[in-house]
Amino acid sequence: MPRYRIDIEYDGGPYAGWQRQMGQHSVQEAIEKAIAAFAGEEATLRGAGRTDAGVHALGQVAHVELSRKWEPNTVRDAINAHLRLANETVSILRAAAVADDFDARFSAKTRHYLYRILNRRAPPALERGRVWHIPKRLDADAMHEAAQRLVGHHDFTTFRSVQCQAKSPVKTLDRLDVARLGEEIEIRASARSFLHNQVRSLAGTLKKVGEGAWSADDVQEALEARDRAACGPVAPARGLYLVTVDY
Amino acid sequence: MPRYRIDIEYDGGPYAGWQRQMGQHSVQEAIEKAIAAFAGEEATLRGAGRTDAGVHALGQVAHVELSRKWEPNTVRDAINAHLRLANETVSILRAAAVADDFDARFSAKTRHYLYRILNRRAPPALERGRVWHIPKRLDADAMHEAAQRLVGHHDFTTFRSVQCQAKSPVKTLDRLDVARLGEEIEIRASARSFLHNQVRSLAGTLKKVGEGAWSADDVQEALEARDRAACGPVAPARGLYLVTVDY
Repeated sequence: MPRYRIDIEYDGGPYAGWQRQMGQHSVQEAIEKAIAAFAGEEATLRGAGRTDAGVHALGQVAHVELSRKWEPNTVRDAINAHLRLANETVSILRAAAVADDFDARFSAKTRHYLYRILNRRAPPALERGRVWHIPKRLDADAMHEAAQRLVGHHDFTTFRSVQCQAKSPVKTLDRLDVARLGEEIEIRASARSFLHNQVRSLAGTLKKVGEGAWSADDVQEALEARDRAACGPVAPARGLYLVTVDY
Repeated sequence: MPRYRIDIEYDGGPYAGWQRQMGQHSVQEAIEKAIAAFAGEEATLRGAGRTDAGVHALGQVAHVELSRKWEPNTVRDAINAHLRLANETVSILRAAAVADDFDARFSAKTRHYLYRILNRRAPPALERGRVWHIPKRLDADAMHEAAQRLVGHHDFTTFRSVQCQAKSPVKTLDRLDVARLGEEIEIRASARSFLHNQVRSLAGTLKKVGEGAWSADDVQEALEARDRAACGPVAPARGLYLVTVDY
């Protein structure tokens, strides 16, 4: 059957997450309903990242098989038209015909995430629901320095949700950069794959460094403890974005 | 009475505009209610720009007199606390004590506006309600070139709402720059003051240039016609931001 890759942007605020769940409104379900409305068939999407409730995407990637061959641009525009009718905060950026062996989840080489902190006294008005608001000034340089202790091949048990279903807690974190851009602090994380809640756990721990409560050595100790209890707070979902996926 | 300047960010989407109007929810009313809740008095705000329904602000400026002397940071934090309780999409960025002759409206030297166009095929998901979505590729360079015909001291009758209450349609436009930033086109306009709907009228006319329907000469002819009917479409409110005000 013809297979399509679709790249997706969404505001995760209204959704119970990416993945279809009984009795809840998910991004996957919203798109599958739009596909059913235009193509008249029940197709199942597979996404690269199973983002949690409230997490956003600038470039989630999924694949889907349809029984009929369509112009990829028709797939994109038709899904968008039905998403709009349903008032979903989801948009298909691109659609492309791909080979049968392209799997959005298993072919992914690197996943890139962004975590946004609004670091100013005043709460967000325009970026409400899109950032983690931290009124107290954070030291972004100290956060970046401590972050480098976490880059590489490690057992990330400390930074893993107790609900995580991954077989192993050992992962390779390729990049964990922290930078200040005016009132905002951006944390950029890249890896082949992440554990459940890993980026939010890393962001919450780095916030402890930013406010001066933890040193880079404390972060390294937390990592080496391989103990969930050693983790800082888990940062809220609303600041997290799946930016793009490399294949 | 002690006078305060407050700088304000808001998502204009939920509001009938800046100005208090009988029976409608305005930004001014939201802040005045928050002031009443914390200071226990009915104070009246005066804003630098009377933004329309749906128009946003990154840095609206207003002044207010209160009968008691407060720490400016207390004014900021207390108003924000009450705005939050009321679930308003308004945030006080700064508050400062100012002299009695500071008038947010009449002392303003330059007002800076930004108009944002999302210029890509896919509709916005994350920036929904914050940009004008134009799927067809626009030529930002041609828009910028045509915009320069509008800079300077002119009779802007063509670009003025029929409801405009300004005494004269003659204004000096200091800056009208158009630039592409990836998928977005930013139009930046600066002047001592603007006519009602002027920036949105300019943006709508420049969009005609961007899509190739109008030339720079057509824009100049429209200006010289001094006729509202010669104007392009008025761009939607959701793409417009009052950025900052100089004093």
